[in-house]
Amino acid sequence: MLPPGALTAFRIVLASASPRRVELMRENLGLEIDVRPSQFAEDLPKSDFADAAAYCRETARQKATEVAARCCGGDEACGRAQLVIAADTVVSLAGRVLEKPRDESHAAEMLRSLSGGEHEVITAIALVLVPAERGAPVREACVAEVTRVRFGDLSDSVIDAYIKTGEPMDKAGAYGIQGRAGAFVTSIDGCFFNVVGLPLSRLCAEIVLLLGIQQAREGGQQ
Amino acid sequence: MLPPGALTAFRIVLASASPRRVELMRENLGLEIDVRPSQFAEDLPKSDFADAAAYCRETARQKATEVAARCCGGDEACGRAQLVIAADTVVSLAGRVLEKPRDESHAAEMLRSLSGGEHEVITAIALVLVPAERGAPVREACVAEVTRVRFGDLSDSVIDAYIKTGEPMDKAGAYGIQGRAGAFVTSIDGCFFNVVGLPLSRLCAEIVLLLGIQQAREGGQQ
Repeated sequence: MLPPGALTAFRIVLASASPRRVELMRENLGLEIDVRPSQFAEDLPKSDFADAAAYCRETARQKATEVAARCCGGDEACGRAQLVIAADTVVSLAGRVLEKPRDESHAAEMLRSLSGGEHEVITAIALVLVPAERGAPVREACVAEVTRVRFGDLSDSVIDAYIKTGEPMDKAGAYGIQGRAGAFVTSIDGCFFNVVGLPLSRLCAEIVLLLGIQQAREGGQQ
Repeated sequence: MLPPGALTAFRIVLASASPRRVELMRENLGLEIDVRPSQFAEDLPKSDFADAAAYCRETARQKATEVAARCCGGDEACGRAQLVIAADTVVSLAGRVLEKPRDESHAAEMLRSLSGGEHEVITAIALVLVPAERGAPVREACVAEVTRVRFGDLSDSVIDAYIKTGEPMDKAGAYGIQGRAGAFVTSIDGCFFNVVGLPLSRLCAEIVLLLGIQQAREGGQQ
């Protein structure tokens, strides 16, 4: 959790178009944010990475870096320090990475593969702290949080009805735990909001750490 | 999860005034419900029960029974079978039951006691299936689901700021995991929606069981 007023002096930029992440930042953390979706292509070759978490971290880092570069100049330079926050969420099932489904039949295949078993949801968050003064050092942090999720058995008719709601199509692993798929999940081990797309407690801890380090340095320079 | 259309023939009555439970039933389960808050006093002596789960189950059972009795006659008799659903949520910390806080200072005391440690959230659900025919046997089920919740360290200033939001006052344990307190929670083990106030997956499984048993019996009588 963030100390009250900790971010008052900063412009906070969410480098994500996800309405869930926007809502979590505004409603659950109570932060005023500007939304600047990243234009990063999200096409890193998975085989270049040791595991799903490493792939996810690098995607989040690229998104944050791309948006931070835009925030440093032109119309976006605001005279305040800026905190850019990006995130990337994937589902990992027995070492295989599931992202957003291509189409309804791909969504059904994903849901059948998750039925009755356990998988991991990984969200990486990348933070870039852009100082107000041009040329002053930029600070970065990038971490991945893992939540284990257990599904009950899903019948074909339940999967078909769920796909008809349209909910799976823009979501990693083809489900939204905060929506109609909430009843699919018998238990989780870890952070719930990580499964939604933004690990709130971890995000706050990383922000405090990033600001704390900077504040300590500024103190040392006085 | 419920098979599509499983409850079409039933009137579903939620015996709870909780806006969170209403939203979970309507938005997450997609059910049409009538809301009939229970008038049960919720004053059972805790010392009469072996543990928090037993206390919680009996409170949920009393709520469901009271509402079901009203649904059987007068204006509420609707000619359809009715499924009455009640729930009760408590926080259990080292054997002590925390319910809704009495006032802000009680809420602060509860939150300080939860800071930096693990507690259990118990939600009991009670179902009463009232048949359409007067005098036909009523069926009941009552179960409790437990979720372990771990909090990060909460400073006094964070607790004060949280209490000022007003969010804690109508909630067991003085917090709402789905709201501003989401960032307090580093991890959970179990069902997230159980902490919100209604264990969706377990509720669906119990409904299927209750209806399944009845359908089997009806089959046997033909």
